[in-house]
Amino acid sequence: MSIANFRADLGDIPVEDRPRLVQQRSRDHYWYSPILKEKLENVTAEIVVSPRSVEEVKTVLAAAYRHNVAITPRGAGTGNYGQAMPLAGGAMLNLMNMDKVLEIKPDRVRAQAGAVMEHIDQQTRAAVGGELRFHPSTYRMASIGGFVAGGSAGVGSIRWAGLRAFGNILGLKVITCEETPRELDLVGKDILKVAHAYGTNGIIVEVEMPLTQSYDWVDVMVGFDDYLDACRFAEAVGHQDGLLVKEVAACAAPIPETYFTRHKTYVRPGQSAVLLMVAPVAVDAMMVFIDHHKGEVLYRSDTASEEERKRLPPIYELAWNHTTLRALKVDPTITYLQTRYPSVAHIKTIMDILGDELPMHVEVARQDGKVAFAGLPMVRYTSEERLEEIIRIHEENGCAVFNPHRYTLEEGGMKRTDRAQLDFKREADPLGILNPGKMIAWNDPDFDFESGRIWLFSGLAPAGA
Amino acid sequence: MSIANFRADLGDIPVEDRPRLVQQRSRDHYWYSPILKEKLENVTAEIVVSPRSVEEVKTVLAAAYRHNVAITPRGAGTGNYGQAMPLAGGAMLNLMNMDKVLEIKPDRVRAQAGAVMEHIDQQTRAAVGGELRFHPSTYRMASIGGFVAGGSAGVGSIRWAGLRAFGNILGLKVITCEETPRELDLVGKDILKVAHAYGTNGIIVEVEMPLTQSYDWVDVMVGFDDYLDACRFAEAVGHQDGLLVKEVAACAAPIPETYFTRHKTYVRPGQSAVLLMVAPVAVDAMMVFIDHHKGEVLYRSDTASEEERKRLPPIYELAWNHTTLRALKVDPTITYLQTRYPSVAHIKTIMDILGDELPMHVEVARQDGKVAFAGLPMVRYTSEERLEEIIRIHEENGCAVFNPHRYTLEEGGMKRTDRAQLDFKREADPLGILNPGKMIAWNDPDFDFESGRIWLFSGLAPAGA
Repeated sequence: MSIANFRADLGDIPVEDRPRLVQQRSRDHYWYSPILKEKLENVTAEIVVSPRSVEEVKTVLAAAYRHNVAITPRGAGTGNYGQAMPLAGGAMLNLMNMDKVLEIKPDRVRAQAGAVMEHIDQQTRAAVGGELRFHPSTYRMASIGGFVAGGSAGVGSIRWAGLRAFGNILGLKVITCEETPRELDLVGKDILKVAHAYGTNGIIVEVEMPLTQSYDWVDVMVGFDDYLDACRFAEAVGHQDGLLVKEVAACAAPIPETYFTRHKTYVRPGQSAVLLMVAPVAVDAMMVFIDHHKGEVLYRSDTASEEERKRLPPIYELAWNHTTLRALKVDPTITYLQTRYPSVAHIKTIMDILGDELPMHVEVARQDGKVAFAGLPMVRYTSEERLEEIIRIHEENGCAVFNPHRYTLEEGGMKRTDRAQLDFKREADPLGILNPGKMIAWNDPDFDFESGRIWLFSGLAPAGA
Repeated sequence: MSIANFRADLGDIPVEDRPRLVQQRSRDHYWYSPILKEKLENVTAEIVVSPRSVEEVKTVLAAAYRHNVAITPRGAGTGNYGQAMPLAGGAMLNLMNMDKVLEIKPDRVRAQAGAVMEHIDQQTRAAVGGELRFHPSTYRMASIGGFVAGGSAGVGSIRWAGLRAFGNILGLKVITCEETPRELDLVGKDILKVAHAYGTNGIIVEVEMPLTQSYDWVDVMVGFDDYLDACRFAEAVGHQDGLLVKEVAACAAPIPETYFTRHKTYVRPGQSAVLLMVAPVAVDAMMVFIDHHKGEVLYRSDTASEEERKRLPPIYELAWNHTTLRALKVDPTITYLQTRYPSVAHIKTIMDILGDELPMHVEVARQDGKVAFAGLPMVRYTSEERLEEIIRIHEENGCAVFNPHRYTLEEGGMKRTDRAQLDFKREADPLGILNPGKMIAWNDPDFDFESGRIWLFSGLAPAGA
């Protein structure tokens, strides 16, 4: 591995090698996890390469292959598991210069990997009145390629489930890392080979996604004195097929009053909050439904003053991983877990055991056709041992945990790395230099694919099959 | 009651009193049921009144009140339970002259009650690229007012559930039958007072419905040798949140080869068929999914020749109550049931017991946020006693039946007539002359509202509550 020789082969492709800047670009939001923060703190690449075209990506990958330089692809770096951190050093492949929306049709959009999701939606809304089906809470920063490579679900998943669901990604253009890099257009089930693979088996350079009708979603915050009532209401909203919503989350007290810095004036002490994004066509019916559940409407953007709307962040920036982010800004000892709660009773059980050590936050989302509680509880972190204990308490009480304090694909539990994916890595990255260290199965030929664990991404087995 | 005096008060509002034509207009599709056919055969009004405006409807209702003339409202008469049949004679109130689309917005449409659903969609597609969320298989004939007053679900319910779900009806304008008829604009939960009430407690003259994005839906017919595999596939499609579909039904052999007169050339003997309407954006993924389930694509409209597309009816005209209609055209002894099958195992149990006496047909639809099998099995009818036995066999095996061989609201089991609805009838129809004989609770003050039965329309209790 010779960075100098590698660099010499890149022509005029922009590079950055000032160590401080390189280290900055070598980080994602791994610092949500105190464990990853410790483990990955000193990780850095030696150089950042920022190609501007598919041809330039090929040039980079050919040079990497020739000089055996590790390549870690990166979008906006908003992932939370070190997905985009270069464990083996080498080069960061920054794809944010490839940010063009290539084609918009009434029901789909094709964009370069580095296109920011909010920018895509701005263009598709103007062109065809459409928007992406769902997006992470980092919508205003995150790239579509990064989301596909390292994300799973988000705002809109109450209707469309996650990236793993068939039909939510239409096509990917991937560049292989070989002597002569190839351009592969993946469609159908081949998409699953590289979706949520952290760029370990091919560099995603273009993404084609379905669009759905766009709305001027109305932000609504609903208060409940009892968090379990909030959860029951949130689940009931998820079951209302006629009430079109894009986001449903329930945050237990004291999260709203303590961490929602700009929304907290709407919240009484002790109040839990349900966060909703409601289509204008569903707002009247939603108000009836809120009333029926004895919820208190704390805020709604459609009747708020212009001053309020300007002052407040969009409600999705209180949800998903932004809930934790807002807490972290107030209290740096906070971290979080990713869980699945089969029912409100399970949420109650966990809360009864863990109390304020685990300020509860659940997202209501579809999964395999069912409305489910995707838990993103905060954890008042004390030690790694205690965190493991909290995980064990979840598992012992029938609540699956997808550990966000692991940087490998397999340990995080978000995705099963199956043989087809491993085979695809053998084909697309024969030297194993793409994001090295993230796929255990690559390094461990005895890796047990059939360990019986619950995976959020179940590999090539279609959802619900 | 004096029809002559009533008529004299109608001014130039069009009327028809030739007995044969009046009797024709006094019928709906009650003849799907051999039991209703016998019971209602001689039912007829004395006159048909066809107002052209809300003012004229008020004139008719004031005259009816004054002269104590029974009024039975009617749209296109495509209901199957005698909803629009005048049990007490009197006047048919034909609303098909009130067929205007009044207002189209990007997310909603307001139309007069007599507007045909296909015509509404043609206008909303042209204006805003939107369409109604769902419609019955009688889409090309049925009126929106008739659907709201007497229907429940249909094509599109796989995504949006049925009319009972909050948010699927935005507003109704209803005229009361009093000395001075009033115009009531019902929104929110008040809508449930008159939806699916067969016009017993107010005459619906305007309807406001939400729109959803319109697509050039692709008709797909998928063959399976084993009907239970077809059901498993159909259910799995329903669980695929990323595969946008508008219709999923499974028809057991020999239905496709025997009754789908124009589609049967695509079907091998013994083959069961799953009927799908797929959004173009989801077709590629659906093909992968069909392949994964070992289904055989028998027909798809997007690759069919123009000649085929012209020759074949749309696939929704093989589904819902059209499945039975097609069978009835070939074999007049066929009738049907409305059931709910909790699982494929329940379907198997019923088929094992009843065999070819009950050619199976299920629709996959959402209900309270869950994907469910709404059964519309055909019945090879022999006697009323045997039909009752078949219903009993269903109930004894945990499969609810919503009996379509009853003409009252309560007995049909589609809707619970709760006290609020009865109260609304007292207010809107003090003489009890609107569609008399259809609401048992009106005539029986001891009617048990809490009989513990399962109702498809659960009255004013919000779905999922």
